[in-house]
Amino acid sequence: MAKDKPAPRPKAVTPKGFRDYFGAEVAQRTRMLAQIAEVYHRYGFDPLETSGVETVEALGKFLPDVDRPNEGVFAWEEDGDWLALRYDLTAPLARVAAQYRNDLPSPYRRYAMGPVWRNEKPGPGRFRQFYQCDADTVGAASVAADAEICAMLADTLEAVGLAGQYVIRVNNRKVLNGVLEVAGLSGDDKEAERGIVLRAIDKLDRLGVEGVRALLGEGRKDESGDFTKGAGLSEAQAEVVMGFVEAEKRMNEVDVRDAMDAQDDAVIEMIGREMSYRSNPNKLVEREKSVGDLANGMMVNYLRQLVEASPVGTEGVDELALIYDLLAAQGYGPDRIVIDPSVVRGLGYYTGPVYEAELTFDVTDEKRNVRNFGSVAGGGRYDDLVKRFTGQAVPATGVSIGVDRLLAALHATGRLDTTEAGPVVVTVMDRARMAEYQAMVADLRKAGIRAEVYLGNPKNFGNQLKYADKRNSPIAIIAGGDEFDRGVVQIKDLILGAQIAQSATAEEWKDRPQQREIGLSDLVAEVQQMLADQAR
Amino acid sequence: MAKDKPAPRPKAVTPKGFRDYFGAEVAQRTRMLAQIAEVYHRYGFDPLETSGVETVEALGKFLPDVDRPNEGVFAWEEDGDWLALRYDLTAPLARVAAQYRNDLPSPYRRYAMGPVWRNEKPGPGRFRQFYQCDADTVGAASVAADAEICAMLADTLEAVGLAGQYVIRVNNRKVLNGVLEVAGLSGDDKEAERGIVLRAIDKLDRLGVEGVRALLGEGRKDESGDFTKGAGLSEAQAEVVMGFVEAEKRMNEVDVRDAMDAQDDAVIEMIGREMSYRSNPNKLVEREKSVGDLANGMMVNYLRQLVEASPVGTEGVDELALIYDLLAAQGYGPDRIVIDPSVVRGLGYYTGPVYEAELTFDVTDEKRNVRNFGSVAGGGRYDDLVKRFTGQAVPATGVSIGVDRLLAALHATGRLDTTEAGPVVVTVMDRARMAEYQAMVADLRKAGIRAEVYLGNPKNFGNQLKYADKRNSPIAIIAGGDEFDRGVVQIKDLILGAQIAQSATAEEWKDRPQQREIGLSDLVAEVQQMLADQAR
Repeated sequence: MAKDKPAPRPKAVTPKGFRDYFGAEVAQRTRMLAQIAEVYHRYGFDPLETSGVETVEALGKFLPDVDRPNEGVFAWEEDGDWLALRYDLTAPLARVAAQYRNDLPSPYRRYAMGPVWRNEKPGPGRFRQFYQCDADTVGAASVAADAEICAMLADTLEAVGLAGQYVIRVNNRKVLNGVLEVAGLSGDDKEAERGIVLRAIDKLDRLGVEGVRALLGEGRKDESGDFTKGAGLSEAQAEVVMGFVEAEKRMNEVDVRDAMDAQDDAVIEMIGREMSYRSNPNKLVEREKSVGDLANGMMVNYLRQLVEASPVGTEGVDELALIYDLLAAQGYGPDRIVIDPSVVRGLGYYTGPVYEAELTFDVTDEKRNVRNFGSVAGGGRYDDLVKRFTGQAVPATGVSIGVDRLLAALHATGRLDTTEAGPVVVTVMDRARMAEYQAMVADLRKAGIRAEVYLGNPKNFGNQLKYADKRNSPIAIIAGGDEFDRGVVQIKDLILGAQIAQSATAEEWKDRPQQREIGLSDLVAEVQQMLADQAR
Repeated sequence: MAKDKPAPRPKAVTPKGFRDYFGAEVAQRTRMLAQIAEVYHRYGFDPLETSGVETVEALGKFLPDVDRPNEGVFAWEEDGDWLALRYDLTAPLARVAAQYRNDLPSPYRRYAMGPVWRNEKPGPGRFRQFYQCDADTVGAASVAADAEICAMLADTLEAVGLAGQYVIRVNNRKVLNGVLEVAGLSGDDKEAERGIVLRAIDKLDRLGVEGVRALLGEGRKDESGDFTKGAGLSEAQAEVVMGFVEAEKRMNEVDVRDAMDAQDDAVIEMIGREMSYRSNPNKLVEREKSVGDLANGMMVNYLRQLVEASPVGTEGVDELALIYDLLAAQGYGPDRIVIDPSVVRGLGYYTGPVYEAELTFDVTDEKRNVRNFGSVAGGGRYDDLVKRFTGQAVPATGVSIGVDRLLAALHATGRLDTTEAGPVVVTVMDRARMAEYQAMVADLRKAGIRAEVYLGNPKNFGNQLKYADKRNSPIAIIAGGDEFDRGVVQIKDLILGAQIAQSATAEEWKDRPQQREIGLSDLVAEVQQMLADQAR
């Protein structure tokens, strides 16, 4: 007999590129965000929470590496307005700073934490919704504001437990602009060349020095045979840019040469040490501060020479030196702060200092390669974002922490418990006594103990213990008719049970029984005692 | 001379129906959510965080009162799939419970907190993004699970500071179904009538008893003259339904009549008291528990008589009585738990017990009317939501707290500070000494004191003090060249300053100077002392 076809059932799936977070994952993030907020608050930053939805025109188009037609955002039309999910927390801040400019204190220090959305091709570990945690100062033109953000970033990383395992790398986009000016690429008619040069520098990690050099000249053929046209710079122009790209290496070469000319053995040795430190960031924390100070000072001098013909470049070098001095005065020395021209921070809206927090310990990736953990936060100065709305320049600088990267780092260092303590489970032997089981649980909860009654079908007692196991429960309470008649309950140590199950010999556990009978009126005290014993 | 027109500037506006939250508003919500999470956690619930985006098919169509073509959600098409922002936290939970059904513990207790989005006409105090905070138990058929949620809701309201100011009203949708059955409205051919009756009951608050009665019969003409067709029930059918709608009133009348017949003065007095309590919820907290117990018992008996011809209705009354007993056994008595047939909770997916937390204190609304604060949370049992995906019934029950309503309630009771303590502000007299100002602030922060250097243009000193005022700063630190030379700073008590400014006579403040000079090395200790004095 033909039946009517039922309506097709909806599929229970997370949308492509999104994911769900369970239990400990959520709790860990919540705790970490609270630790970060505490530091931000201490620095005088106030929380701001904007909604996930903005107008498309307010968001603007600042996403790097956009390879999709709708430009990296989730957008839709609503009553004639185009709305979109925010792709970061900076664009909404710029909108707020413009919208409430007459009401907000100036400077306005704010922090924000929450999800952002990117309409990008999902990949391994790359999701379309993820958390950011930002702090920005709007209305402060002084690089003291940039220095403060760097100090706060250092304190934040220490607050979450990464003291001695990070460096903050600082650069200034004005130095890069100075290099372009010195290379004769500053005119309005040179925009195309500048674009090629900037993109090439940004790809240094991937292409290497040779690849970047090729793109500065005629161009580069990649492994697949595809040809990318270069900027067509002359040998001399390219040399200036490469002096910047290879600043680290050349600076050391120059200084070694100078020292050798002067036969200064101490300086030669110091520079040699510094070079090996720089190439192995794990050792940075071992550096003597004096060596680090010297290295940063050398870098400033090297950059100053490189851009001395460019006023904007020189300004950038001055700012870099000032940030370094301000941080040193607050106790953030060269063991934590490194001047590093290779920090470019994308190609977006930055106009001055840029900075990046890098974790210096090694991790083994999925291909079993050992590599540096790398960047977990970055930011910089963006003096033109608020101007989009108001027409008036408003200086601003700030940092964004990649919350999921930072959590992954804490996992890598073993600083996060991956399992949360489960509840004490009161099992159900006699369904008719549910009120009495609930009363036990109410007493435990009133004493601050995480506890629950088993609320599934109580028929199969084995299922109740399996449930307790799955919940990672420390203790099960068992009571049937006989126990209730005698005013007692059984208390079962599930942690000890698991240890005994794993152990070859049960001998050693003899004096600590896995299960015992206690008076019902002692329930709370006995559970507290057993939890304390387990924590030992 | 004609200039090129510049590109039009984007408007700095929050999208229509959305809003921004600043400073204390964000901090208060964060704190309240942490308090709630702590209670949920103690009850054995685990956090779950799904993303803001779901497939439209997974969300389903369960929004009440949808008056817009795109059915109340923000949705868009993406690579051929329709995606949407979640409109609540229950639909994503049902999806998760189906998707991970082989991996999750059963029962699965989870809590979730976060924003949800509704594509509705914005109105005063009604926004298109708002927070919910839910706790649900999936896989527990027993009403012990519903009772537990009610107990947890009570503990939650007490944890945020509302002890003695709420009642939790409990009902059961099966009782309502029983009433419809007794009224002869249970057949498949009576769906249209049932719909009209349910909508009429749900509008009791707005239409009053007369209005509902009219809609049960021929229909009702509203003030504007529009006519709404009624369910066309007979007098006898309508009488059954009105016996439910007016349960509170009729129950008392019946009992008073019985008592008068029996000349039982004590019962007559008790019922009279109970009636006045019920009509004035403020007095509920004053009720003797015995009277409350009697009232709830009378209500159970009344409902049992009303639906005795209906098996499903009788089952509903039994469940109500059991929930009440389970809660009483855990110490949640009639001062907090009220059986109330007027609780219907929309017309959506509920299949059994429904519950609602009502705050019992009065507030004055924007029209200067004094009214009961009303509902801040509600929920119930929805046994069919997971079945949508899997085809297999999965029992589930849970509650949703309206986070913004609850925050508003805490404001109304004066339990929230509306201003946050601002940072200590170190002012800048000499821009060249920024490193020294920053070092002062670093010392204060290291001691856990919220502090910052003024980072705006320091030229106008008055602006710096205005800034400190706007930030609600307790203390300003002032030091120029002269102070630095002598190793001192000025410390200025801004709280005292504000008090003196308000006071008619400065006499009383004489022994507590508003500003004084201290040694630079005593800065941290002196600031700590002044903050402690201010807190007194």
